[in-house]
Amino acid sequence: MARRIGILTGGGDVPGLNSVIKGVVYRGAEVGIEVIGIRRGWEGLTHVNLADPNSKERYILPLNRENTRTIDRTGGTFLHSSRTNPAKMKSLPEHLQGMDFPRQETTKKGITWTVYDVSKVVLKNLETLGLDYLIAIGGDDTLSYAQKLDSLGFNVVAIPKTMDNDVRNTEYCIGFSTAITRAMDAINRQRSTVGSHERVGIFRVFGRDAGYTSLYTAFVTNIRCGIPEHRFDLDKMIDLLVHDKRNNPSNYCLMVLSEGAEWEGYTVQEYGEPDAFGHRKKMSVAEDFGNEVKARAKEETLISDLTYELRSGEADFIDKLVASTFGNMAFDCVLAGQHGQMTAVENGCFAMVPIPDPKLGPRQVDVSTMYNTERYRPNYTNKVGWPIFLCRL
Amino acid sequence: MARRIGILTGGGDVPGLNSVIKGVVYRGAEVGIEVIGIRRGWEGLTHVNLADPNSKERYILPLNRENTRTIDRTGGTFLHSSRTNPAKMKSLPEHLQGMDFPRQETTKKGITWTVYDVSKVVLKNLETLGLDYLIAIGGDDTLSYAQKLDSLGFNVVAIPKTMDNDVRNTEYCIGFSTAITRAMDAINRQRSTVGSHERVGIFRVFGRDAGYTSLYTAFVTNIRCGIPEHRFDLDKMIDLLVHDKRNNPSNYCLMVLSEGAEWEGYTVQEYGEPDAFGHRKKMSVAEDFGNEVKARAKEETLISDLTYELRSGEADFIDKLVASTFGNMAFDCVLAGQHGQMTAVENGCFAMVPIPDPKLGPRQVDVSTMYNTERYRPNYTNKVGWPIFLCRL
Amino acid sequence: MARRIGILTGGGDVPGLNSVIKGVVYRGAEVGIEVIGIRRGWEGLTHVNLADPNSKERYILPLNRENTRTIDRTGGTFLHSSRTNPAKMKSLPEHLQGMDFPRQETTKKGITWTVYDVSKVVLKNLETLGLDYLIAIGGDDTLSYAQKLDSLGFNVVAIPKTMDNDVRNTEYCIGFSTAITRAMDAINRQRSTVGSHERVGIFRVFGRDAGYTSLYTAFVTNIRCGIPEHRFDLDKMIDLLVHDKRNNPSNYCLMVLSEGAEWEGYTVQEYGEPDAFGHRKKMSVAEDFGNEVKARAKEETLISDLTYELRSGEADFIDKLVASTFGNMAFDCVLAGQHGQMTAVENGCFAMVPIPDPKLGPRQVDVSTMYNTERYRPNYTNKVGWPIFLCRL
Amino acid sequence: MARRIGILTGGGDVPGLNSVIKGVVYRGAEVGIEVIGIRRGWEGLTHVNLADPNSKERYILPLNRENTRTIDRTGGTFLHSSRTNPAKMKSLPEHLQGMDFPRQETTKKGITWTVYDVSKVVLKNLETLGLDYLIAIGGDDTLSYAQKLDSLGFNVVAIPKTMDNDVRNTEYCIGFSTAITRAMDAINRQRSTVGSHERVGIFRVFGRDAGYTSLYTAFVTNIRCGIPEHRFDLDKMIDLLVHDKRNNPSNYCLMVLSEGAEWEGYTVQEYGEPDAFGHRKKMSVAEDFGNEVKARAKEETLISDLTYELRSGEADFIDKLVASTFGNMAFDCVLAGQHGQMTAVENGCFAMVPIPDPKLGPRQVDVSTMYNTERYRPNYTNKVGWPIFLCRL
Repeated sequence: MARRIGILTGGGDVPGLNSVIKGVVYRGAEVGIEVIGIRRGWEGLTHVNLADPNSKERYILPLNRENTRTIDRTGGTFLHSSRTNPAKMKSLPEHLQGMDFPRQETTKKGITWTVYDVSKVVLKNLETLGLDYLIAIGGDDTLSYAQKLDSLGFNVVAIPKTMDNDVRNTEYCIGFSTAITRAMDAINRQRSTVGSHERVGIFRVFGRDAGYTSLYTAFVTNIRCGIPEHRFDLDKMIDLLVHDKRNNPSNYCLMVLSEGAEWEGYTVQEYGEPDAFGHRKKMSVAEDFGNEVKARAKEETLISDLTYELRSGEADFIDKLVASTFGNMAFDCVLAGQHGQMTAVENGCFAMVPIPDPKLGPRQVDVSTMYNTERYRPNYTNKVGWPIFLCRL
Repeated sequence: MARRIGILTGGGDVPGLNSVIKGVVYRGAEVGIEVIGIRRGWEGLTHVNLADPNSKERYILPLNRENTRTIDRTGGTFLHSSRTNPAKMKSLPEHLQGMDFPRQETTKKGITWTVYDVSKVVLKNLETLGLDYLIAIGGDDTLSYAQKLDSLGFNVVAIPKTMDNDVRNTEYCIGFSTAITRAMDAINRQRSTVGSHERVGIFRVFGRDAGYTSLYTAFVTNIRCGIPEHRFDLDKMIDLLVHDKRNNPSNYCLMVLSEGAEWEGYTVQEYGEPDAFGHRKKMSVAEDFGNEVKARAKEETLISDLTYELRSGEADFIDKLVASTFGNMAFDCVLAGQHGQMTAVENGCFAMVPIPDPKLGPRQVDVSTMYNTERYRPNYTNKVGWPIFLCRL
Repeated sequence: MARRIGILTGGGDVPGLNSVIKGVVYRGAEVGIEVIGIRRGWEGLTHVNLADPNSKERYILPLNRENTRTIDRTGGTFLHSSRTNPAKMKSLPEHLQGMDFPRQETTKKGITWTVYDVSKVVLKNLETLGLDYLIAIGGDDTLSYAQKLDSLGFNVVAIPKTMDNDVRNTEYCIGFSTAITRAMDAINRQRSTVGSHERVGIFRVFGRDAGYTSLYTAFVTNIRCGIPEHRFDLDKMIDLLVHDKRNNPSNYCLMVLSEGAEWEGYTVQEYGEPDAFGHRKKMSVAEDFGNEVKARAKEETLISDLTYELRSGEADFIDKLVASTFGNMAFDCVLAGQHGQMTAVENGCFAMVPIPDPKLGPRQVDVSTMYNTERYRPNYTNKVGWPIFLCRL
Repeated sequence: MARRIGILTGGGDVPGLNSVIKGVVYRGAEVGIEVIGIRRGWEGLTHVNLADPNSKERYILPLNRENTRTIDRTGGTFLHSSRTNPAKMKSLPEHLQGMDFPRQETTKKGITWTVYDVSKVVLKNLETLGLDYLIAIGGDDTLSYAQKLDSLGFNVVAIPKTMDNDVRNTEYCIGFSTAITRAMDAINRQRSTVGSHERVGIFRVFGRDAGYTSLYTAFVTNIRCGIPEHRFDLDKMIDLLVHDKRNNPSNYCLMVLSEGAEWEGYTVQEYGEPDAFGHRKKMSVAEDFGNEVKARAKEETLISDLTYELRSGEADFIDKLVASTFGNMAFDCVLAGQHGQMTAVENGCFAMVPIPDPKLGPRQVDVSTMYNTERYRPNYTNKVGWPIFLCRL
């Protein structure tokens, strides 16, 4: 049986992560399994120098009931996070410099750079720490390395989290419900401002590749939405909004756009000076769309960006329920001696599934069943047989 | 195809009812089916005198996009509610007095009274209103008459709502998630008071027969709970609480009790003068339990009743999602010409199921899988395969 | 100049206390004055045995930036609280038993008991701890001993807190604004339930002697109220409520009662067995009033108790503003070598005033200017010249 | 005595406006004075064509208890708003075209245009509507015309509102407290995200000329701030933030900037194509400052814009209290036959003051007493004698 489990959180934080951590630690305390917190995601396994007490203190935190008792009362992650991917490191921490690692050339937008795979360091550190298992909590990128590490022979159990809800093999990722809760609350609070000034209110939410956040926000606020999975017709969308506005006795209307939403013929504009990788800043699709509304329909707009707000604050009921359950499922998986698996919701039920293949990319909204391409709204009909979160794998 | 649908809400209100109503009305507007609001639950069909314009105005409200546009922004029910059951009326409205109705003697606590079944009036009113279908939204009692009415030959589709989550044949009833959201928020807000005074904090929530509200509140706040389905051992519960308190560096502990929870040997106490039916007021189990804590463990307590707060305010994300979906499923059911069915969640998925048999009584917590009778907490382990709401039918 | 300041919080907790504590500690850190936390109010100075390390650890907590950095993010008091009054102790802690203290007989409701004045122990402990000053935060009772201690020659600065807002010599006490915020939010959330069931909604809030909480809640929710300072006419109040209900198209009405409110001819009822002091439990005035509404007006009621909710959660803007300012004013007072004073708001401005004379009892609502005895509502007119909180000393 | 009062709201909406409107209407109903709502601010008096029923319906709304009963439960303004200034109209509504109005050339950034003064139309419309008085609610710009209109002989009473709190002659404007409440809540919610990623968190709030919103947000969240009234030293600010971050065991820090804040040597950058008036879009000072933090301190930042959120939702306790009181004071002023006055808070007390002279521009933060230019924080000390809102006129 496992004796000592590591746990880490990678990528963007979401409310609920601390409930997972606490759940795992409390289960460990019951059955006598140590739980070791790895701080700052994978960085804790690539950058730690276990021979250096300061470095060890910076990255390794033994967890117990005392130091996790109150963590589930706040959002974020008690273990902190980073976007480090041990298989794709752009630069090496000081104490690894000069060592020999597999390298690879990566090219993006005409700029090429070298990335290193420091997996051998990760494996060595896991061994030195005496860990039998690692519970890795993260989104696409974090979990892609979880899969790799498991394939290298170290036992990993994965837990999906992301407010975008776009990890494959699961209908639900921790943080999604709270994100919709925050978006719904913000839009309903700002409704009176849009109405008082008789505007077309355009809200923008995170979601570069997947439109779940925009779609479900629209579902529960009854407004139009644009998602990355379907390029809309610009004039048709504006017509619908102007129609909504005219039919509203308060003479306003609302819509929500994923940051990755586009209309037919739209190319995102950039501005400012290019950075080291040749990237210039991208214009907000909400602002660009707002300009089109003004130009074509002579309607004033109000653009509101809902960004970090969506991952802020305490987890809502569903995220606490799922986070605790996922944490316990991961622990049960460890107890059962299984690995390479991810906690998931499948067909409306909790399930253990394979950690998704990173090559497949993020999960996306199934436009044909979930999005009404005539009315640019969620599809509300014929839901009998659908899982509770209204999406299928 | 149906031409005109009635819709009513019965029993206690919960947030989300207005999303159902709006969803049905908007669908109706799209396909040209009229939706008629019946006000005050079944009372709108028993007490209305359609020959009297004032009475008609009081009870019958044709619904349209305009008068339902903003209703989903508030809790409660736009159509208002009552606890009238047409098959068990204790008194007859004025204009029905003198008419002949089937009657039945009912005896409770030694007091006997007569109840009337005015179904023939209900059927007549439905006919006069030209309704083809009725969508009835309610809990146990409201839906028991929905089933009867359907069996009498009038097409009924039912939608379950109750913050107790105890309607049979469905894993979820509208209002439950918001109730847990409110309870969780209130307990977390009051935590600092219990801690500042180093008390045993005892929260009481609705739930006379079923402990779902208490159990799930405990689940997401990580505290002990008592539920009606399991009589706890008084000394053991107090020992656990005292142990929690001593192990908490802030020297307090929390627990939540269903109003119907009991311990072995406990008989609820009554006080005050008996009313017309011989009923005296019942002591709160939380106060009685608090007295035992004081007497046996010499610990001070803080008793906090979470009552109407749990059904207050706007629906949360899940209740809006489910309410809209249930409303649309009911409408789809009408379009398909089906009846006698209830919208439901079954095995984590949306489903149409039979309206439950009223004789079976409320659904209850399955103690063996959901409640830890050793630790008086929810059971957190072995949830793989369980539906998202962690209960099975 | 002072070298070492003690700080304590007594009586019921309110949100904002931690902002005071943090403010004092941070100011101390800047100028090199130590701040020592006395835990559990005056109990920390009566019960502590400084010769016993366990007792000292239990009651004495040196404060610094590190251990107070995050405390202002939660309500309650980081130092915990008690209702101990060193001049009126009913029983002596173990290590003081057998010592000789001034004693006094107190008689209440025919029961007589002895109380001890252990001020000499308090003074000795303050000396042993090397304190020059004490900042005492509390309501009436806590501050009455603050005044006494100062008169005994130990330098005390007082800070008023109580959600009842009834400390003399100040227009504002920490916790009041948050209490009204909570009451207003709760009433507005529960409005839809009262409306859906067409009830007379009766809210009860804390306030045995002073009606500020009830009055200001009524002010901002536009409802009727009853306060301890004016016995209302029962029939007139019921008439007003029935009139409100009939004129409301949703057929409901709301009112709020202080727990100490009464009508002419009302004697509070008691129930249950008498306790050690001969006290039986008091009926809630809201329930009794509700019974009268039912009996006289044949209207159904909904009774909602807003109790600990009012002191729960994080401080609101005003309480954070005032708490930080009071903490800094107290510190400025220490720096100036002044004592026997209380931080206050006087005529709308921050002021230092004498600690109030305990013999005067709590401050009360001035009925003639603030309460409309014809309409049982706050008085909204002729406010020019009044301080921002609408009350004068 | 007045017989018929007009009321309008101009400029940006804030929570609390509806409490003012309701307060005035209810007082009017008591004493038999009609209250007529003018819709869309001054536009309702410049654009309305009283001979055209459609135009009249669009702009004129007689108010009564029934249509204002529930308006105070939402933010925004029931009467809607606009930024029209009758003395500075850039274009004329259709039915006024061809009429002769005083005109003036205005030059801004090298672009010149003509503005018209249509006061004679406003006066004529007020006369046709039979109004004796006008209550105008707004910020700087709206009230500048209120003053002019009063000087032209029509009786005006003004009520200040703006979340910037920068109207002269008053220490408080409706909307300010709610804005701080929202900012405080958003920052505290997002704290866990900034901490989880160990960033320098930079929040931007409205406030082009006056820094009250930034300053008071900083006051109650205990963070650094930049305000338009004081250009900060870039390196010193960054040093302070880096120091804060290093001293925080969670390794993050927070600060808030007014949109109009600047550092020494900073010139706001512009981007995109110029619009009709030659204006290009302005870069956010928060993004520019973030770039400097990255470049100079090699610290990652998180930039969060708090924009419409600050004026969203329901009014908080203080804004409801002040809004109701201002509404009643304005009504009392009408009853007393006075005009040319504005409701205000002066030295902590409610007062009637002259409508401010528009030439003086917005009120600004007094840096010497309110802002610590060494530590870029609010000044917390020596507040005895200061009004409750900590600013003096």
